[in-house]
Amino acid sequence: MTSSSPTNSFGTRVQAVPTQQPSPMPFQRYRAFSGVDLPDRTWPSKRIERAPRWLSTDLRDGNQALIDPMTPSRKHKMFELLVKMGYKEIEIGFPSASQTDFDFVRQLIEGDKIPDDVTVSVLTQAREDLIERTAESLVGAKTATIHLYNATAPLFRRVVFRVDKAECLAIATRGTELVMKYAEQHLGDVEFGYQYSPEIFTGTEPEFAVEVCNAVMDVWQPGAGREIILNLPATVEMATPNTYADLIEWFGRQVHNREHVAISLHPHNDRGTAVAATELAMMAGADRVEGCLFGHGERTGNVDLVTLGMNLFSQGIDPQIDFSDIDEIRRTVEYCTNLPVHPRHPYAGDLVYTAFSGSHQDAIKKGLEDLDRQAAERGIPVAELEWEAPYLPIDPHDVGRTYEAVIRVNSQSGKGGVAYIMKTEHKLDLPRRLQIEFSRVVQAYTDAGGGEVSADALWEVFQQAYLAPDQPLQLVEVSSASGAGRTYEVSASVVDRGRARNISGEGNGPVSAFVDAISSLGYHVRVLDYAEHALSSGGDALAAAYVECEVGDGENAQVLWGVGMDANIVTASLKAVTSAVNRVIS
Amino acid sequence: MTSSSPTNSFGTRVQAVPTQQPSPMPFQRYRAFSGVDLPDRTWPSKRIERAPRWLSTDLRDGNQALIDPMTPSRKHKMFELLVKMGYKEIEIGFPSASQTDFDFVRQLIEGDKIPDDVTVSVLTQAREDLIERTAESLVGAKTATIHLYNATAPLFRRVVFRVDKAECLAIATRGTELVMKYAEQHLGDVEFGYQYSPEIFTGTEPEFAVEVCNAVMDVWQPGAGREIILNLPATVEMATPNTYADLIEWFGRQVHNREHVAISLHPHNDRGTAVAATELAMMAGADRVEGCLFGHGERTGNVDLVTLGMNLFSQGIDPQIDFSDIDEIRRTVEYCTNLPVHPRHPYAGDLVYTAFSGSHQDAIKKGLEDLDRQAAERGIPVAELEWEAPYLPIDPHDVGRTYEAVIRVNSQSGKGGVAYIMKTEHKLDLPRRLQIEFSRVVQAYTDAGGGEVSADALWEVFQQAYLAPDQPLQLVEVSSASGAGRTYEVSASVVDRGRARNISGEGNGPVSAFVDAISSLGYHVRVLDYAEHALSSGGDALAAAYVECEVGDGENAQVLWGVGMDANIVTASLKAVTSAVNRVIS
Repeated sequence: MTSSSPTNSFGTRVQAVPTQQPSPMPFQRYRAFSGVDLPDRTWPSKRIERAPRWLSTDLRDGNQALIDPMTPSRKHKMFELLVKMGYKEIEIGFPSASQTDFDFVRQLIEGDKIPDDVTVSVLTQAREDLIERTAESLVGAKTATIHLYNATAPLFRRVVFRVDKAECLAIATRGTELVMKYAEQHLGDVEFGYQYSPEIFTGTEPEFAVEVCNAVMDVWQPGAGREIILNLPATVEMATPNTYADLIEWFGRQVHNREHVAISLHPHNDRGTAVAATELAMMAGADRVEGCLFGHGERTGNVDLVTLGMNLFSQGIDPQIDFSDIDEIRRTVEYCTNLPVHPRHPYAGDLVYTAFSGSHQDAIKKGLEDLDRQAAERGIPVAELEWEAPYLPIDPHDVGRTYEAVIRVNSQSGKGGVAYIMKTEHKLDLPRRLQIEFSRVVQAYTDAGGGEVSADALWEVFQQAYLAPDQPLQLVEVSSASGAGRTYEVSASVVDRGRARNISGEGNGPVSAFVDAISSLGYHVRVLDYAEHALSSGGDALAAAYVECEVGDGENAQVLWGVGMDANIVTASLKAVTSAVNRVIS
Repeated sequence: MTSSSPTNSFGTRVQAVPTQQPSPMPFQRYRAFSGVDLPDRTWPSKRIERAPRWLSTDLRDGNQALIDPMTPSRKHKMFELLVKMGYKEIEIGFPSASQTDFDFVRQLIEGDKIPDDVTVSVLTQAREDLIERTAESLVGAKTATIHLYNATAPLFRRVVFRVDKAECLAIATRGTELVMKYAEQHLGDVEFGYQYSPEIFTGTEPEFAVEVCNAVMDVWQPGAGREIILNLPATVEMATPNTYADLIEWFGRQVHNREHVAISLHPHNDRGTAVAATELAMMAGADRVEGCLFGHGERTGNVDLVTLGMNLFSQGIDPQIDFSDIDEIRRTVEYCTNLPVHPRHPYAGDLVYTAFSGSHQDAIKKGLEDLDRQAAERGIPVAELEWEAPYLPIDPHDVGRTYEAVIRVNSQSGKGGVAYIMKTEHKLDLPRRLQIEFSRVVQAYTDAGGGEVSADALWEVFQQAYLAPDQPLQLVEVSSASGAGRTYEVSASVVDRGRARNISGEGNGPVSAFVDAISSLGYHVRVLDYAEHALSSGGDALAAAYVECEVGDGENAQVLWGVGMDANIVTASLKAVTSAVNRVIS
């Protein structure tokens, strides 16, 4: 290790390798999870070659874990979204446990809302009255699955249900008999399927889980054209994801009738590795995956079906699901669940197609130029080239997004960026996507003018872009704005390209009523997001309103933000709509 | 498969196995990632036995990807948090690329802010002027690491830098020589360490990555007491997590001087599997992990150090990091980054210790009772028992949280829950943690009164809990509230336990000034979260303000919400503070 090379004449002292110190955390209370011992596992050498069968449980496991469960109209919106995206198996509720769920199942069936190629599924516990009620909920469906579960994990057997193994197994087999009895009685016209879950599979002795599943199959008698779905829930994620894959591969080797069994995964995300556990378990032989859009569900949620599908897509595998307008999917799920999608959520978050670092931006620019050059040389569109660009794992256009180079503009004090200055100096708390949009506007300004930008200059740029008074469409006065119940009416005077007009419209709030009103002038606006806040206090209080709008129709539609400020909060929001319109047409 | 058993007399039709249809997604543009072929991999049979060396890059990679980078005061707050939690290696910036970063490094060193057992690290590209400037930034540090990177991936060599392999390798070795030269020149008194990253490791031919790393080591000459950190970034996550583990195990077998190399992971989360990739790569032999608290960083972020640490904890392994007040960690990171932690984020989200389903709640209740019973039988505290409870992977108390059974209260129309009714019927948009808190209040009411609750009754319960006027501390009048620059003064008349008092205080806003004022009455309040919105429009506009407060000191401190409503937004927020105080003392 000694050397006389000049590069080894290094004279400074060298760090000691750091020593680690114990933390105050009571880790002694916990023990490592033990799975199955499977030294001859084969999954680590496998690849995922195709999409699994997907089941969405957004309307059951997802809905169950919302602070406020979805209203019926939100449930219908979610169901329509799932169908439109291409999900063919959809769990729609727990009808024996909830009248609301029962009613929703009936509305879907009686309203003929379920396409012929979609199978709906409902969950039930293994009690006779609940099973009969569950069968009744499905009368008239074309294709439906009853999903029966019982607790097989030792903690649940001992503490919650106080049953031994034989009693636990009997609950599963008796429940299966009852499902068959009541399906025969009520569902003669339904193409019927059966799913069984040993709950919590990952907390159950693996041998016992197989024993129960085999016993259930002795009753159901799967065979050619008569499959059974055996769903193996990681209801609580308990270990590194490879242990779930080991369990699934082991289960597939042990279980009877493997060729007539659809092995189904139902992972939760307590350790933040549900997507990985699902992928490794698919490599280990699973056929089917249950999850929720953006990973809703109890606690940390079920596995995220969007990330799983897009992960397949990014590897050249057809996800069998349409993610081409991921923002619309996100908005619908946010509306239905009343929970946000995180700005860093894979494939869908506000920030995931942005680049902040100058070196990233430079590399991406060169990469995109190179794709253009290759396409020109070969005389084909870029979209027909294999995608390869620095820091962009997929082409954002494939999901209806765009790449954003976010330039940070420092104030002269060097103390923060655009959003920070707008908030601290100008009291405007811009929504995140507006921050990104405005940073582009500022970038255009600095590209022209160069260098840093002062707080005053930033305000100039903001006013010019969002608040300029001499724009094609001006709101002169809100002559009346009133609402009763769920309808709202607005009348307003506007100047449209120099011509004074009185307009009025209706909606479920002042903004939608105003959007209705300006449609008579030929402006087509769809409001995507909305935020407002007070700017100051006291008698001269101002409010700021921000609306994200789609302005225009079809191919030419643009998504952008408008901003309005006024002492009256309603007027501020209508001004924000005109601001968005003006940003497109001027 | 035929049988005469009565259980097989099942007469209904059986579902066809669903066929999958192609999606409109252009998956043909992408190809599967190919890693290394490692059929004799050993990592799938390994277990993680101890915490890795952690490096936090919150102040470099994390800060780099914020819409607004942290201000200096936020950077100091973040650094203090990281030190307090127990991180011993902290990357504090890219001083040659940013004057702000340079200044921050100097402030930490000159202000003597770096504890003796903490090593700071700075990043640099491989240009001579940048390397010299980087070394200069560290003068006077006790222990410091220079982290050099250059792009080794073929896409970057071809498109971004236009270098061949030999030129690329020469950049790395020449850069290492320059680091040694300028360290010797400027850092004679520093305990000095060296880290090298082939960027993007996962996009680089594995053999070439090893070749470059070996060449770098020929210059640095690692040996006993003279380690090198070889950091292997998955700067873009490109494949299932097992492929990263294969690469790391393979690299560890190929690289020279393995015993003097710290193999370091730097995973990003583009496929939502960064935590898994890190864990499997630790099983594959990695020594060290770089990431950010709650996974901030470019796009989908760096791997989340909180989830990784807590995952170790939940398996009985000392994470070496103090997570015992996870809410305080979350609040500080949210403040510094101006980005939220998702409500379903593992271990830290608002919803992760909640149970919504009745069957989950019942099981948890029985599980907790069983732990109490066991503890009583053995005459020891519950905290000394091995933790095992249904649906709660860890004891929430271990991170300063509590388990919440969230009862859903339906309105008589059955159309939604508590938060939904409060919003649609009463125009109050409760913050999420207040929704959870209020559902407990409602539950206490329904437990007493039974059954469903009407919108009117809900309003009664809310008023009683949060807005009751006959409470110990009443705000009578805000006599003056004014601010100039960064200080704000409030004078107010209050009635404290029946006695009229005039109080005044100072702060950086009206709420903090009022908190200062009531401390003179002996009320100790710390404001943790704040939200407000307008309730209605027009001249009689009302505002609602919500504050989450810690009320009281030390062991007896309680965290809860207060609510205030007033035409004046400032008065509303001060009323919210008195509401929180009253909820504790009355």
